[in-house]
Order: sequence, then C-alpha cells, then structure tokens
Amino acid sequence: MRTGVWLVGARGSVATTSIVGALALRSGLTGPTGCVTELPDLRGPALPAFTDLVLGGHDVVTTPLAKRAEALAAAGVLPGRLVAALPDELAAVERELRPAPAGGTQADRAAVTVRDLTDFRRRHGLDRVVVVNVSATEPAARPHPGHADPDALAAALAGGDEVLPPSSLYAYAAVRAGCPYVDFTPSTGLRLPALVALAAERGIPYAGHDGKTGETLVKSVLAPMFAMRHLAVRSWSGVNLLGGGDGATLADPAANAAKVESKQRVLGETLGHLPQGGTRIEYVEALGDFKTAWDLVTFAGFLGTGMRMEFTWHGCDSALAAPLVLDLARLTAAAHAAGHAGPLTDLAFFFKDPLGSPTHSLADQWTRLCGFAHRLHAGGTDAAPR
Amino acid sequence: MRTGVWLVGARGSVATTSIVGALALRSGLTGPTGCVTELPDLRGPALPAFTDLVLGGHDVVTTPLAKRAEALAAAGVLPGRLVAALPDELAAVERELRPAPAGGTQADRAAVTVRDLTDFRRRHGLDRVVVVNVSATEPAARPHPGHADPDALAAALAGGDEVLPPSSLYAYAAVRAGCPYVDFTPSTGLRLPALVALAAERGIPYAGHDGKTGETLVKSVLAPMFAMRHLAVRSWSGVNLLGGGDGATLADPAANAAKVESKQRVLGETLGHLPQGGTRIEYVEALGDFKTAWDLVTFAGFLGTGMRMEFTWHGCDSALAAPLVLDLARLTAAAHAAGHAGPLTDLAFFFKDPLGSPTHSLADQWTRLCGFAHRLHAGGTDAAPR
Amino acid sequence: MRTGVWLVGARGSVATTSIVGALALRSGLTGPTGCVTELPDLRGPALPAFTDLVLGGHDVVTTPLAKRAEALAAAGVLPGRLVAALPDELAAVERELRPAPAGGTQADRAAVTVRDLTDFRRRHGLDRVVVVNVSATEPAARPHPGHADPDALAAALAGGDEVLPPSSLYAYAAVRAGCPYVDFTPSTGLRLPALVALAAERGIPYAGHDGKTGETLVKSVLAPMFAMRHLAVRSWSGVNLLGGGDGATLADPAANAAKVESKQRVLGETLGHLPQGGTRIEYVEALGDFKTAWDLVTFAGFLGTGMRMEFTWHGCDSALAAPLVLDLARLTAAAHAAGHAGPLTDLAFFFKDPLGSPTHSLADQWTRLCGFAHRLHAGGTDAAPR
Amino acid sequence: MRTGVWLVGARGSVATTSIVGALALRSGLTGPTGCVTELPDLRGPALPAFTDLVLGGHDVVTTPLAKRAEALAAAGVLPGRLVAALPDELAAVERELRPAPAGGTQADRAAVTVRDLTDFRRRHGLDRVVVVNVSATEPAARPHPGHADPDALAAALAGGDEVLPPSSLYAYAAVRAGCPYVDFTPSTGLRLPALVALAAERGIPYAGHDGKTGETLVKSVLAPMFAMRHLAVRSWSGVNLLGGGDGATLADPAANAAKVESKQRVLGETLGHLPQGGTRIEYVEALGDFKTAWDLVTFAGFLGTGMRMEFTWHGCDSALAAPLVLDLARLTAAAHAAGHAGPLTDLAFFFKDPLGSPTHSLADQWTRLCGFAHRLHAGGTDAAPR
Ligand SMILES: NC(=O)c1ccc[n+]([C@@H]2O[C@H](COP(=O)([O-])OP(=O)(O)OC[C@H]3O[C@@H](n4cnc5c(N)ncnc54)[C@H](O)[C@@H]3O)[C@@H](O)[C@H]2O)c1
Ligand SMILES: NC(=O)c1ccc[n+]([C@@H]2O[C@H](COP(=O)([O-])OP(=O)(O)OC[C@H]3O[C@@H](n4cnc5c(N)ncnc54)[C@H](O)[C@@H]3O)[C@@H](O)[C@H]2O)c1
Ligand SMILES: NC(=O)c1ccc[n+]([C@@H]2O[C@H](COP(=O)([O-])OP(=O)(O)OC[C@H]3O[C@@H](n4cnc5c(N)ncnc54)[C@H](O)[C@@H]3O)[C@@H](O)[C@H]2O)c1
Ligand SMILES: NC(=O)c1ccc[n+]([C@@H]2O[C@H](COP(=O)([O-])OP(=O)(O)OC[C@H]3O[C@@H](n4cnc5c(N)ncnc54)[C@H](O)[C@@H]3O)[C@@H](O)[C@H]2O)c1
Ligand code: NA
Ligand code: NA
Repeated sequence: MRTGVWLVGARGSVATTSIVGALALRSGLTGPTGCVTELPDLRGPALPAFTDLVLGGHDVVTTPLAKRAEALAAAGVLPGRLVAALPDELAAVERELRPAPAGGTQADRAAVTVRDLTDFRRRHGLDRVVVVNVSATEPAARPHPGHADPDALAAALAGGDEVLPPSSLYAYAAVRAGCPYVDFTPSTGLRLPALVALAAERGIPYAGHDGKTGETLVKSVLAPMFAMRHLAVRSWSGVNLLGGGDGATLADPAANAAKVESKQRVLGETLGHLPQGGTRIEYVEALGDFKTAWDLVTFAGFLGTGMRMEFTWHGCDSALAAPLVLDLARLTAAAHAAGHAGPLTDLAFFFKDPLGSPTHSLADQWTRLCGFAHRLHAGGTDAAPR
Repeated sequence: MRTGVWLVGARGSVATTSIVGALALRSGLTGPTGCVTELPDLRGPALPAFTDLVLGGHDVVTTPLAKRAEALAAAGVLPGRLVAALPDELAAVERELRPAPAGGTQADRAAVTVRDLTDFRRRHGLDRVVVVNVSATEPAARPHPGHADPDALAAALAGGDEVLPPSSLYAYAAVRAGCPYVDFTPSTGLRLPALVALAAERGIPYAGHDGKTGETLVKSVLAPMFAMRHLAVRSWSGVNLLGGGDGATLADPAANAAKVESKQRVLGETLGHLPQGGTRIEYVEALGDFKTAWDLVTFAGFLGTGMRMEFTWHGCDSALAAPLVLDLARLTAAAHAAGHAGPLTDLAFFFKDPLGSPTHSLADQWTRLCGFAHRLHAGGTDAAPR
Repeated sequence: MRTGVWLVGARGSVATTSIVGALALRSGLTGPTGCVTELPDLRGPALPAFTDLVLGGHDVVTTPLAKRAEALAAAGVLPGRLVAALPDELAAVERELRPAPAGGTQADRAAVTVRDLTDFRRRHGLDRVVVVNVSATEPAARPHPGHADPDALAAALAGGDEVLPPSSLYAYAAVRAGCPYVDFTPSTGLRLPALVALAAERGIPYAGHDGKTGETLVKSVLAPMFAMRHLAVRSWSGVNLLGGGDGATLADPAANAAKVESKQRVLGETLGHLPQGGTRIEYVEALGDFKTAWDLVTFAGFLGTGMRMEFTWHGCDSALAAPLVLDLARLTAAAHAAGHAGPLTDLAFFFKDPLGSPTHSLADQWTRLCGFAHRLHAGGTDAAPR
Repeated sequence: MRTGVWLVGARGSVATTSIVGALALRSGLTGPTGCVTELPDLRGPALPAFTDLVLGGHDVVTTPLAKRAEALAAAGVLPGRLVAALPDELAAVERELRPAPAGGTQADRAAVTVRDLTDFRRRHGLDRVVVVNVSATEPAARPHPGHADPDALAAALAGGDEVLPPSSLYAYAAVRAGCPYVDFTPSTGLRLPALVALAAERGIPYAGHDGKTGETLVKSVLAPMFAMRHLAVRSWSGVNLLGGGDGATLADPAANAAKVESKQRVLGETLGHLPQGGTRIEYVEALGDFKTAWDLVTFAGFLGTGMRMEFTWHGCDSALAAPLVLDLARLTAAAHAAGHAGPLTDLAFFFKDPLGSPTHSLADQWTRLCGFAHRLHAGGTDAAPR
C-alpha cells in the first residue's frame, strides 16, 4: 500500500524530524522508539510499511530541509550522523516540497493545493495521500457565514473573502482531493460545519486535534490515578517553559489561550470538577527545542489530610511528536483503505483535544486504539464507519 | 451484613487512622474521600455498609488507642476535632483490642488467636470477621519443613519450634477460625504452601500484599505511559524518605530489602526490561508520618533523543492507607459472602506486590476491580470462585 | 529601653503572627527561631529586649485578634497551644488596636494617626514607637505635585485631595509624631521626595522595602553563587503559587507587577545582565498561608556546556516574616536611640527591594548588617548618621 | 611566567576537558566562562596567562587524548568543533603524557616521577610546574609507621613496602621535584605528617581537597542562608546519581564513604549541628557524564512552623571542574612565585573539604580568595607565607 504523507508546515521542527526519522527507519539506520504503531499490540498487516511511505508537503518558508535538519542536529533534537547519512534521500524529499499557495482568492489557493496533492499522488503512483497539518498554531477562526454548509462555503470562497483560516483551507483542499486529513495542531482545521458535511459527503476520514506530547500526556495518566483512588484534587497548577519555533508562536496571547484551554480540559473531564490553578505557556528562547513543564498538584486524602505531588517534565517536543505523526499517517491511511469516514474518535490516544472522545484517560484511549487497530488488521467487516 | 474487621497491629498508625475514620464515617462526621469502594463504579449492595463494621484487633503494645489518635492528630495525620468528637466510640473499640498472644508454643498462641476471633464474632453476632494485617513489616521468613503442607505444619507447630513468622501465624489462625485474611504488609502472611493448601481446604479467600500508597502507585501509571508510547526508559531511580513507626522498622536492612524489591517489580513487568537505577528507603525521623519520595526517570525517544522526568510525592502514608484497609475489608467480606475462596487476584489494584496478578498497570487493575465488584453486586451466579 | 511597635495592618497574617510570637517570647513559651537579632553575631545591649516591647496598631477591619490567631493556628501557621496559653496578653494587645483613621481630609486622618501614636507612647511611658507597615500591598502611587517637598505636601493635604497612598500617609504621620518607620511591603511608604525631606528635617530613621522571605531570599544566595563561579546564567524563570490574604491582593495585576519587578531586580544587579525568563505570582486559594515557589535556572559552563538547576520552596510566609518584623523593630529602635536618621541602608538584608543598597548578595548584606549591629552595641561614636 | 600544569590522571574526563579548554582559550576559540580567575575581582598581573600554560601528565591508561576528547564531545561535555579545530595542539600535549610509573619499589616509582617532572620543566624552560591530581578517587590510606615523618618515610619507601597510596606518592615526588601540588580529589594526597613536614622543609605550597562542583557548592550557599536567618534545619537529605568514570569508581563503597563524608561536613560546620539525613552517591551508567543531585531540606521557622525546600542540580561534572583546575594551577603557581609555602587555606573556595579552612560558607571563602588574589597582584610584601 504505497502511501503519501503530505506535511503542511513541511519545513518546521516536527515535520523535519518526521522526515529524517521516516527516511532513517526506511533505511534501517534507526529503530522505531517512540512509534506506537510498532508496539506488539498495534502492529499488523493493515498498516503501510515505513518503506511504503512517500513524503512531501507545503511550507511558507523556503529554508532547505537539509539546513533545518542540521540545525535540529546542532540543537540535540536529532543525531547529526543520520542527517549526514541521508543526503540523497533528503534531497529527494526536498524536490517534493511546494510553496504554500499564495495570491488570488482562497478558491484559487485551494485549487492549487488540490493540484499539488493530486500531482503528488499520480507522480508516485500512490494508493492514497494523508495530509497532516504540522504548521504553526493559528489564532481561533473568525466566524463567517460561509462556515455553515458546503454550498455557502463554495460561494464564499469564490467571492474573494478570507473565509477560512489556513488550516481549514488545507483541510478543504484535502477533502476535495479525496485525501484523509490529520490535524496535529490546535488550529481549526476541519472543525467547521461546512467541512464536516463535505468530508461526510466524500467519505473522508479525519483525526485531531493537537498532539499530546508532554504535560498533558502526564496529566492523562495522573488525573485518572487520583480519580481511581478517590483522592480530592484541590489545585493543579502548571507552567510550560519552551523555546523553539512553536514557543515563539505560542507567546502570542491568542494562540496561547487556545492551547492552554485544550490542556486543562483533561482535568475537568477526568476529575469531575475543575481544580483551582491554571496552566501557562511561557517562551524562553534559551531553552531551544526542549521544553520544561512543572506541575504542582495538591490533594486531600482520607479525613481531609492535605498532600501534594509535583513533577518536572523535560522533553524534546519534536522528538516526541514526530513518531506520532508517522503513526497517525499509517493508521489514518489504513482507516481510509478500510472505508472509514468522518472523525476517527478511536485515535484520541494521540491528542490533547480529541475529536468526539468520551474519555481523556490515556489507558481508556489505549484500549480503544488497540481495538481499532485490531479490527483494521482483522480486515473486511469493520470497514463501515461506526 | 454485620462484618468484623480485626486489625493485627491495631494500635499502629494505619490501624488507628482506619479506626478513627471508620467511626467518623459511621457517625457521619466525615466523607469517604480516599475510599474507592464509595466511587460510583464500585459501590453497591454487596458491600457491608460502614455502619455494619465492628472493629477489634491485636497488638503487642498497650498504648491506649485514644492516645495514639491524639498523637496522630498532633502530627497532622488526623483532624483533632474527630478524635475529640468520638471519645465513647474509641473507648468501645479499645474494649475490643486484645494483647498479641505470647508465651507457650506457636500452637498455643494460634489457639488463643482463634479464640479471640471466634469470641469477637459471637459477642457481636457478626456474619463474618475479616482479619487485616497492618502490623510492623517482618524480615523474610526462614524456611522450615513445616511450611510444606498442612499436616507437616500442624506437627511442627505442636513441636514447639518457631515455625512461622508472626504474620503467618495470624493467617493460620484466621483460616482455622474461618476468617478471610488480608495482608496489607510485605510480610509473608499466607504465602506458604501449607497455608495456601489450608485456605483452599477451608474455602477461605485472601488478599495481599503490601498496600500501594505512594511512589509505587505513581509508578503504576507512569510506567504504562512510557510503555504505551514506546519510549525507552533507561533509568528509574527513587528515594523514599520517611519517619514514623514504619520508617523506623524499614530502616532495618532486611525489612528494607523486602520492601524495595516489591517496589521495583512493577517496572520490570510493565516495561519488559528492568531499567538502571534502584529505589531506596531512608529513615528521617524529622519527617514524621509524612513521606517524601523523589524519582528520576531518564528515557530516550525517537532517534534516541534523551529526555527526563522527575516527580516528588509528599504524602501522608497512614491517611492514604487507612481508607484502603476499609475498602479491602468490605470487598473481602463480600467475596467471602459470595463464596469466593483462594487468592483474590482481582484486588491487585490495592497492592504493590499483588497475589498472582498478571498486570502491574493501575488502569488494567482498575478494570479488573470494577468487573469484580460488578459481579459481586450482581450476586448469585458469580458465587463460585474462578 | 521600653519600645512601642505600632503595626499598620495589625490584624493581618504577618501582624498577628508577630504579635503572638512577641507575646510567646516575652512569656518564655517559645524560642527565638527565625529571629536574626538573637544570633550571636547580632545580639547585644543596644537592642530592646522582647520584654521591653509593647504592641499596638491600626487596621481597617475589626476581626478580633484572638479570632485571627485561631484561624492561623487552624491553618498550621501557629501552634494552637500558644494562642490558648495567651488569652490575657492577646486581650491586652487588642485594647491597643485602633481603627484605621477614615473620613475627613488626608490632613485630618494624619492628625488622628499622630494622636494615636503619641497617646500610645505616653500611655505606656515608651522611649519611642517604631511604626511598621504590614498592611496590604497597594498599587503604585499616582503622581501629585504635593509629593515634591514638605511645603507642597502640607498645602495639598489640607486642600482635600487624596494626595498620598495610605502607606505614605502613615509614614507622614509617623515622621510627624517623631517615630521611626519601617516598610515591610512593596508599597510607596516614605519613598516620596516630600517625605524623604521631612524625615531628614526631623532626624527620623527609616527602613524598607518588602520583606525578603521566600524565592527572592533563595535568589539572593544562588545568583551570587553563579556569579562567583563565572557561570553564564541564560534563563531564570519562576512561579509563585500562594493563597492567603496577601495572595488575593497580589492577584490584582497592578500589585502583582510592583512585586514581580522587585523580585527580578536581584538577578540583574547580581549577574550583571538580566537573564531570560520572568517571575510570576498566581493566587491559588487552596494553598492557604503556605506558598510554593518553583524556579528553573539554565546556565552554561566551560566551553558552553548547558546545565540546569531547579528548586521548590514551600514556606509559610507569615512564619518567615513575623520574626523579621520584630528584628526590624528592635534594630530601628536602637538606630533611633543612637541618633541615626534617614534610610537605614545597612538593613538591606531584610528586604527584596532595599533602600539605597549597593548589593543584592545576601552574604554581603549580612556583613553590613553585622557591622551595623556591632557599632550599635559598641555605642557612642557611631551615633551620628553616616 | 611560563608555567607547567602536570595532570595526574591526564586521560580522565576532568583532565581531558581541562586540556581541550586550555588549548581553546590559548587559541582564542572560546571564552573563559567558568574560570573564576578571569572575573574582575580576581584577575591581574600575578597570574600566568593561558598562553603561558604548558600541559603534561601521567595516566595508567593509554587511550589517546584525541579519542577521549571525541568521546566527551559525543557525550555533550565538549563542543565537537573544538576537538576538530585543535588536532595539532592535542597531539602536542599527547607527546607530553607519560605512563604512570609502575614496577620496582615505591622509591623507584617516585624517582621516575621526579625525573618526568624535572625533564618536563627543563624541556620547556618552565619557571615552575604545578602538579594537579585529577586521577580516580582512592580508598582511605592504610596507616603505616612511615607516615610519621620524612626520615621514617624515606626508610620505608626504600624498604619495598607499599607505604603510600598513589596520590601521596605523587605528592611526595612533586615536593621532591620542587613542584607545588593541588589535590582536586578526596584522596589522601599530601595529608600525612611526613609529607606536610617535607613540604614545609622545601617551601612548597599545596592546596586541596576535592573540587566543589555540584551539590556541595549549592549547600555552601544555602546552609549559610538558613543559618543567617536563624531557621532551624531539621533534615537535609541528598542523593547524587551519576554515570561516567568517576561514578563507576565511587560505586565502590570505600571511595563512596570518603566522598560522602566530605560532602556532609559543610552542613555540620555551618549550621552548628548536623541535621538528620545523609547524602548518597549512586552509579547510574545511563546518566553518562551528567550528574543529577536532589536534596530535600526540612526546617522550622518562627514558633516551630515546618517548611521545606528541595532542589535538583543537573550538571556536567567535568565542565564544572575543568576551569577550576586551570584556576587552581594559575593561583598556586602565583603563590609559589610569591614565596608561599604550606597549605593555601585561602583557596578553600574551590574545595569540598578545604585544608585548614575556618569556614564552609562560599561567600566567606570568596572574600578570602579575593583578598589573597589582591595581595598576589599587589606583589612584594605578602610574599612571605602567613
Ligand atoms: N512538537 C510537539 O510536541 C507538538 C505537540 C502538539 C502540537 N504541536 C503543533 O505542531 C505544530 C508544529 O510545531 P513545530 O514545533 O514544528 O513548529 P515550527 O514553528 O517549527 O514549524 C511550523 C512550520 O509551519 C510553517 N507554516 C506556517 N504557516 C504555514 C502555512 N500557512 N502553510 C504552510 N506552512 C506554514 C512554518 O513556516 C514552519 O516551518 C504547531 O502548531 C504545534 O503547536 C506540536
Ligand atoms: N502506611 C502505608 O502507606 C503503608 C503502605 C503499605 C504497607 N504498609 C504496611 O502497614 C504496616 C503498618 O504500618 P504503620 O505505619 O501502621 O506501622 P506502625 O509501626 O505505626 O504500626 C505497626 C503496629 O504493629 C504492632 N505490632 C508489631 N508486631 C506485632 C505483632 N506481632 N502482633 C500484633 N501487633 C504487632 C506494633 O506494636 C504497632 O502498633 C507496615 O507493615 C507497613 O509496611 C503501610
Ligand atoms: N508574609 C511575607 O512573607 C511577606 C513578605 C514580604 C512582604 N509582605 C507584605 O506584608 C504585607 C502583609 O501581608 P499579610 O500576609 O499579613 O497580608 P494580610 O492581607 O493578611 O494583612 C493585611 C492587613 O492590612 C489591613 N489593611 C489593609 N489596608 C489597610 C489600611 N489602609 N490601614 C490599615 N490596615 C490596612 C488589612 O485589613 C489586613 O488585616 C503585604 O503587603 C505583603 O506583601 C509579606
Ligand atoms: N568532575 C568533578 O566535578 C569532580 C569534582 C570533585 C572531584 N573530582 C575528582 O576528580 C577525579 C577525576 O574525575 P574524572 O571524572 O576525571 O574521573 P575519570 O575516571 O574520568 O579519570 C580518572 C583518570 O585517572 C586515571 N588514573 C587512575 N589511577 C591512576 C594513577 N595511579 N596514576 C595516574 N592516573 C590514574 C584513570 O586512568 C583515569 O584516566 C576524581 O577523583 C573525582 O572524584 C571531580
Ligand atoms: Na521538585
Ligand atoms: Na524538581
């Protein structure tokens, strides 16, 4: 099953790490640490092999991929030896990158995007192309009447307005081109009535939102622990210090707010009440691509006795995110092949703010993910979307 | 269902906190924070109500219960107002405490213990008595031929040897008196072939070992998180600083070793390999009944990138343990009523070193516990032990 | 040397803890832990004894002192046994508390304040009264032409404008009543040209600003450590989570900003550059009177190698502040007796934002403080202000 | 002032980092971060310039220096670009390294060492050679009658016994060769009556023991902070997790004990009492050349209120130690030039277990160090040892 992985934001940290990693895996230069689809519970025949993946993408900047990869190696995100060992492979991916469509109406830009996707699919004889958004976090979308339904949207786009935020325009083009869409960011993406209806019409599966790689990942196991033990969490306060491109973007208050909200949701839904305290993201350029999160949890036990827990997470966001991007591409491709359409709610395991998920507990999400993969590998009967 | 709860080590910190808590719950002076059997997923008709519990126990010391309770209040473990509000209730329990049998052969002491248990049951017209071991941690048992089977054991006990460690002698007496037995400590308890056979013969259910209340509880959710994300844990080092009676006992190297081993097991079994590093328990008298645990986890992600997490847990051990003691007494009583015998492996959720448990993941243990409780509440058909 | 200590904000947490502590010390019920003036390097004949201190003060609220003390005991700030042991002594201080003057012009209120101070001095036959501001943090003062010099100020006050923020009005009244003034808060206090000139005219010594009790205290030893080792601090980020009355006040953005700025100053001046990152104060009501501060420092060593340090401080602010309030009262009284006037820059040791201090290193401040105390105890010749 | 720096353990991590750093400084490829002798308060004409330093040394292993440097670069201790930029310079130092003398009596080995030192001095026309011990930590020395005085020692060495531990044999040879001696390790070194007497006879200055680079450095500012604030430290517990060559050596219980003891000393002497708790060193190979130390301090404030502080230090030991090795060589050379002999107690700033130091407070040690450097730079009059 030859599968295209089209990265929106293809020259960013997450995308570049995903690309180097996919090439290194394909060449047998590295192992699949961090790839959950390679765990015994998940792997199997329905998923495209790493050697079946073909990479391409859009970006608004033109920094050569090899240069981005070297910068990430210098920052300790990637081993320099991998970059050095894969010059031809990187050059080949470089040739598959396209400038983010610009100029004209949004309808024009969507058309260029559709063409870039279909050309890519045809050029490489791909069974399908999964579009994965790993571009910079956007502010929340401004409401527009065109968001209501596919017809209103088509009319509005042709009219020349800036109807959709970029992530949604990419999602629109993906659906139009018959491509499954994964949103690894907190941006709007496919979450507009018009796009949801269009995806349903065209039988396109999609997944999102916002890759779960650090503090929220830890919360998604600790909060259930407190809940299962009937301990009364009184406050949960967190701070995330990060540098890197994503940090700079999130320093923008609007983007920050979007991200912070998705980070606290897990607590309210798991604990049954929102504890005091909040989560904050601060940009500290000196921290580079590594992020330090610190959380303090205070809780009461039997008879009201006060106790506390704190944790520090010091992670490399891109190294945590990249294998999940490959996992999501593989799973979504398999789901598409099996005939799934609409939101892939069984992929909640990967996201801070999962589409339509009834649970924020990582363990419960894991159980659902395993069941989903199992059914994909078993083939046939599950093909109809639930 | 009137249910006796017989505490071995009845004047210790865990036992005293359990007693004050049970009395306060019975009187409606406090809520059930920390009691997992009061969570919606677990509560139901099969469990004895708090008002159905009658408390008694053995101890080697004679410090009045009220005095121990006041000391725990002064140390911040209990609210002083509860102790002040329950003088008559505490005095009533005080009358149900018996000196730990001493003198004579172990057979003699077992006989006294059996009589204490049956007297207690008759005196209060109880449906059953659950024996819970919360006495001081013992060193590992010395092998003895009498451990092999019930007949060898009966002969050896009568012979005058010190055949069994105290926890096992209590377990023996419990079985002989027809009482379910729960071991909240890392001591030997019922884990000897002769006792296992005897419990099977008499149809007695039992549970253990070693209440999971702090660092290991956290490990049992974090280790699965790393495993589910296919992250390669390289080292996991921990230190537990604690004062209190238990801390003093554990300062003894033999007891320490027993406890430390049960604490690391969760890692090896969950991660599939034992990471570098160890766990250590140190006695620091100034910390009193609160324990501070610090753990450092280093791990590799995609392409080998090194990352780290650390956590500090600052908990009051007795306040964490006491509600679980009540939970275990209620669940074990219900299991006995439903006809269960042998090791209650579905209670693994409560223990660091659970009997015959196939999983150390808290979430998986929770799923099993919920199923178990559900079947108990559904009644009838599940009565036969699986 | 009978010395009055007049507390502005006399029913607040810091004041109440200072009062209970002073009474307990006077009665020999507690030791001087936390009182730096009782250290061998500082104690001596020039300081008034604890038994020489007489307490009084102003507050805008009327909650009885005994009630505030009980609340602090319940919160773990004070031992309840001390409150229980000192009912008469607390009642005696209660009789010395006066409502914060209200109504009329600021000139009128200043006059009432002066009268309260002089009455207190006369009533108890005191040698002097030190006014210590421990009332709630104010926003920064709004500029007013009356701040320029004593004459402009007198005219403006009589005119009916709200010329001065409350802390400055108290400082004005103190100077007018011939009382030394200490500001334990970040508020404006005596820091206005008109008041500085007036204090100089009247020969009044004063000290401030903002008691150094937690994160900044730690910074004032760690920052010099990095500097002395020529390590290049790249970022220093901090978060302060606190409940209590002070926390609620500081949740107000204006007050927060004032406090945060004084907290970062120590870094810039000690390190010679301001590292990246900031300090933040967040109100978390559940934390009560205890504060948790977490700081992350990243730094480069030889050849640029990156390293990091983090610390968590979990302190009871009032318990840290109260003994310093007594220290400052004793030292300022002695300085007044010795003829000092103007800013007591040798008391920088006590403050986050010390008046006219050439150093933010705690060790250097300590050296200066010891020299100052030494000269006070030696008597005579140092009496003239430097 | 051409100065030789002779490193015992010249192929170890600290030595290799010192060598690469000295070469990079000499070539202007790096700045002096971490070198305290380059701070404004310390630098001056009495110290040899980096361009005046010539490096050599002994080691028992023969791994090429360039290989060690590359390994350290791969481990993140050094920037690889420096190693790549200095091949000729490293090769030149390689030619100055000698095998640790072996075979024959200790007298024979001392003679070879003396010859290696004097040859080195003559070969490069050096004014003096400072011997710095950075070899692996030894167990404590076994008592021997030859330790008593120089004559007994000379007789014993000739007799064929293993009289001295290696560090002391190097110290003996250094003194005999007229070379100042610095011990950066906790080993015995010059601390034997016979060697002290010999150094006095020959007018040789020396310094030690045990470079202060991590947890103890932090303790030497935090412990004085608690003391200056009259806070009652109740417990201070620490754990040091480290990999690397030094970690492996320290895993040996005897070496561990020596190191741990020197680490706790600072507390007892600064606080006036030894708090509860201990420090522990554990070898965790996966941590490589970076060390993580975690300390928990519990303390009481005013009226006995309990509080706590914890810190985590994540440092690269070799990067912290190497610039201090260069500092010590420069300062000791200058002291020798100025006529100092005997223990250089003013260098306590650098050591965990300083020779004859009256203070463990870093700030006080800094004051003494500054005075010492100032006198050296001022020249002339201070030349006579105090
Ligand atoms: N790394 C993680 O752990 C993680 C976790 C969750 C979510 N995310 C999200 O992933 C996204 C990428 O993160 P990153 O660290 O790689 O950020 P980055 O800033 O390094 O990369 C973003 C890339 O997107 C490109 N871009 C911006 N606008 C674009 C557009 N309109 N069209 C095409 N490309 C565009 C940028 O030029 C840049 O190359 C962010 O939204 C982030 O919030 C990351
Ligand atoms: N508190 C927790 O979080 C926790 C968690 C897991 C296990 N445990 C285990 O629970 C046990 C009790 O802990 P604790 O803190 O209450 O300790 P504790 O020292 O306060 O109490 C133990 C009590 O057992 C009594 N005792 C000793 N030997 C006895 C005997 N032979 N017969 C009867 N009584 C005897 C002692 O006199 C004492 O009163 C320990 O084994 C501990 O390891 C506690
Ligand atoms: N606790 C510490 O460690 C610490 C450290 C540095 C500075 N401070 C400062 O000390 C001050 C007191 O702190 P707290 O925790 O006691 O606060 P608090 O809120 O408990 O007490 C403040 C008291 O001031 C009173 N007040 C307010 N306005 C007044 C006025 N105009 N006249 C008279 N009284 C007035 C209030 O009624 C209250 O009783 C704050 O400004 C705080 O920032 C405290
Ligand atoms: N790095 C720090 O922060 C720090 C701080 C204080 C003290 N120290 C001390 O510095 C010393 C060196 O540390 P390291 O990390 O470089 O250790 P390392 O193990 O990397 O190097 C020690 C070197 O000494 C050599 N050696 C052993 N015995 C010898 C002998 N008899 N003669 C000559 N060479 C010999 C070894 O072969 C090795 O090359 C240790 O004693 C350590 O305790 C280091
Ligand atoms: Na911490
Ligand atoms: Na920490």
